[in-house]
Amino acid sequence: MIIGSGAAGTTAAFWAKKTDRKCEVLLINREPYPEYSRCGLPYTISKVIPEFLNLREHDAGWFESFAKIGIKLETEVTDINTKAKTVKLKDLKTGKEETVNYDKLVIATGSHPAAPPIEGVQNMKGIFYLRTLKDAMDIEAAARKAKNAVVIGAGLIGVETAENLVEKGLKVAMVEFLPSVVPLMIDPDMAELVQEEMIKHGMEVYTNTAAKAVLGKERVQKVLIENRETKETKELPADLVVIGAGVRPYTEVAQKSGVALGTTKYIKVNEKCETNVPDIYSAGDCTEYPDFVTGEPTPQGMGTIAVRMGKVCGINAVGGEARMPKGVLLTRITKVFDIQIAAVGPTTSQLERNKIKPIVGKITGSSKPEYFPGGKLIRIKILSDENGKILGAQIVGYEDVHQKINVIAAAMQSGMSVYDLEWLETCYAPASCPTWDVLTLVAEPVTKKIARKK
Amino acid sequence: MIIGSGAAGTTAAFWAKKTDRKCEVLLINREPYPEYSRCGLPYTISKVIPEFLNLREHDAGWFESFAKIGIKLETEVTDINTKAKTVKLKDLKTGKEETVNYDKLVIATGSHPAAPPIEGVQNMKGIFYLRTLKDAMDIEAAARKAKNAVVIGAGLIGVETAENLVEKGLKVAMVEFLPSVVPLMIDPDMAELVQEEMIKHGMEVYTNTAAKAVLGKERVQKVLIENRETKETKELPADLVVIGAGVRPYTEVAQKSGVALGTTKYIKVNEKCETNVPDIYSAGDCTEYPDFVTGEPTPQGMGTIAVRMGKVCGINAVGGEARMPKGVLLTRITKVFDIQIAAVGPTTSQLERNKIKPIVGKITGSSKPEYFPGGKLIRIKILSDENGKILGAQIVGYEDVHQKINVIAAAMQSGMSVYDLEWLETCYAPASCPTWDVLTLVAEPVTKKIARKK
Repeated sequence: MIIGSGAAGTTAAFWAKKTDRKCEVLLINREPYPEYSRCGLPYTISKVIPEFLNLREHDAGWFESFAKIGIKLETEVTDINTKAKTVKLKDLKTGKEETVNYDKLVIATGSHPAAPPIEGVQNMKGIFYLRTLKDAMDIEAAARKAKNAVVIGAGLIGVETAENLVEKGLKVAMVEFLPSVVPLMIDPDMAELVQEEMIKHGMEVYTNTAAKAVLGKERVQKVLIENRETKETKELPADLVVIGAGVRPYTEVAQKSGVALGTTKYIKVNEKCETNVPDIYSAGDCTEYPDFVTGEPTPQGMGTIAVRMGKVCGINAVGGEARMPKGVLLTRITKVFDIQIAAVGPTTSQLERNKIKPIVGKITGSSKPEYFPGGKLIRIKILSDENGKILGAQIVGYEDVHQKINVIAAAMQSGMSVYDLEWLETCYAPASCPTWDVLTLVAEPVTKKIARKK
Repeated sequence: MIIGSGAAGTTAAFWAKKTDRKCEVLLINREPYPEYSRCGLPYTISKVIPEFLNLREHDAGWFESFAKIGIKLETEVTDINTKAKTVKLKDLKTGKEETVNYDKLVIATGSHPAAPPIEGVQNMKGIFYLRTLKDAMDIEAAARKAKNAVVIGAGLIGVETAENLVEKGLKVAMVEFLPSVVPLMIDPDMAELVQEEMIKHGMEVYTNTAAKAVLGKERVQKVLIENRETKETKELPADLVVIGAGVRPYTEVAQKSGVALGTTKYIKVNEKCETNVPDIYSAGDCTEYPDFVTGEPTPQGMGTIAVRMGKVCGINAVGGEARMPKGVLLTRITKVFDIQIAAVGPTTSQLERNKIKPIVGKITGSSKPEYFPGGKLIRIKILSDENGKILGAQIVGYEDVHQKINVIAAAMQSGMSVYDLEWLETCYAPASCPTWDVLTLVAEPVTKKIARKK
């Protein structure tokens, strides 16, 4: 039995069936749809993804009849009895309850948006979060009638939603509490180009700024913001507010049943995605997992990790054997308008919180050889320890960014040093990329700095 | 002293100066220009690269006055005295000779096109090879008046030249001796899409076909070809023929002076790019180097390896210390019209020649998540040994191919297995790439096949 048919849960179901065709799988989901791409939601607002249901790969009928996976939608798990190995289910439409047995249980309940302490957000119309298909439908409908949007939180969801609201024709202001945009993704110096790109496309961007209150009668009309340094305040016009200020995991039922949370208050799992309770696995946004570099448990909250954990759960639950790598790299990518933003491993401030002071290499180059027309700007920063171990990397640019970050992900996962990276035999052709890719060039300043220290 | 100012020689010069600013460097070059991008030459024919001199980063004056690197153009080395440590130079314009001392010598003489045994190619007008800037100028001038071109040899130079002749408006036929196009780069099954792309753009493609003779009076009019299997012959109209049938190294002077060639008849060097003669290094297209996978000496003939060997020579020649990786991956990329073609490591037939029978994984996928518009076809093949060691990979597709091959290059150089690759934490975002990149998916059939064998 799998609780949650998001990326983690559905992947677990597929891999359980793939590993043992005869096993019985039941997927439980609170929402009225089986798996859809949560990450694709922002793009439904602008109709870049034309239909909401494009995000859905399969309908419930497909699961039942083709994949032979049982699925119960609009159903909530209210209790897990780990001794009797039963789960209490509640049909959200009828209110009916039933108790179902499991042999192995996968908890993939995901997370929900956090409501930040902003005055008035609780009971004002026009305030949205973006987590579910219904949220996206509501924002899209509201955006059709709106002129001015304020997006609070310049994280992944925030910037992607902002871009799509701009594409839809709205005037968009972005408010970020920290001093730079996408602050958990890349360092402030790397975020400059991203902020410029937003402004170039007509957005207002307020960093180091707190959203203090949403103002209006029944419906939001303005957002009161305050610069955290100058204490200057301003009222931004807003008939639509989207808040992307982090998430909280769904862990209540798991916790009540004795499933242990880790230090971050997310569900703790080992490399096999086992929880502390026998026969109960967990995967995806409701879990924490050790960071590859620092070893610290981290709420990972990423689709790419969710599917990997789901695969591990699905294989192990039916008697196969699979393990996650010893830590997660948090290899991450997004784009805002024409600029792509990617990173892997902790940012500088995340490292510093773990008492690690990285040695930094940073260069700006071109995606193509200088002599070939059409090369695009690309900036890369690499973080190393004093022995040359790669601790992380960040890339912003207008081309090839996502695949370049995968090269560093492979380098980190396999333990390559900056010395190895400096000599990595990358490919070269006039129309593709230079003889020395920025990926290799960025290692030079680091190896030079290390040599000087010794 | 450095003989040859191509990619290897010029890089050696730069790194010598970078490592020891006070060292004196003299670059000798047979051609009338300092370094230009040889790989860019095909694109000057169609004017995608608008001017021939766009390929040249610096002129001779820049070398002398800015980089403080001496340079002698249109100058040939006629003799090396390894005991006296002198080199005899001949000015090709005046015929004057002089003898110059060296402390360290770098031989980076490169290679020249091989003339295949085709009747009539020796003394017919309209027959071209593409190696030097002058060759490109000659082809461009001839192409302006030509209608029908035949390109003999569907290797890198052949396909890139063919594409640019098509772009220039010529009708182009391609003749390849082996059963598939780009045969040294990718396996026949992977070459199918490439051949289709050529035909889609109006080219005629004759594989498994020998060019027997060029026909005409003074000037070529036709090329006689013969299918190697059916023995069927055909005469292709041609007022322009370009031959890309491999290269031969410039090694005569080196060999005469006692510099040893390896089993492939290219100059043999170690990881420090030292030859057998003290104080003589060699780099680039005139050298052989061990293949990373097979360990067999291989004439590598690639710009990306030339610059890496040049860097090693430059650093070591002035007392620094640098080493090449233990073998070359031959990470390679090109594109023909809209399709990109990349590979790393030996092809299947190259492995089989070394008595290695690879386990193969091959999948076709999309560059983006299924639900996101604009994803492009990408096909990937991976070769593994029975323990999961990655032996090579080939990718063809319409997007992201060059950076994906770099991921496999990093994986191979760091010793990652297909098991590691299957779990590699690649990045994911709707507008960029799927949660499971084809890079990771392609490992699954291989690990499954290995499991079945055990």
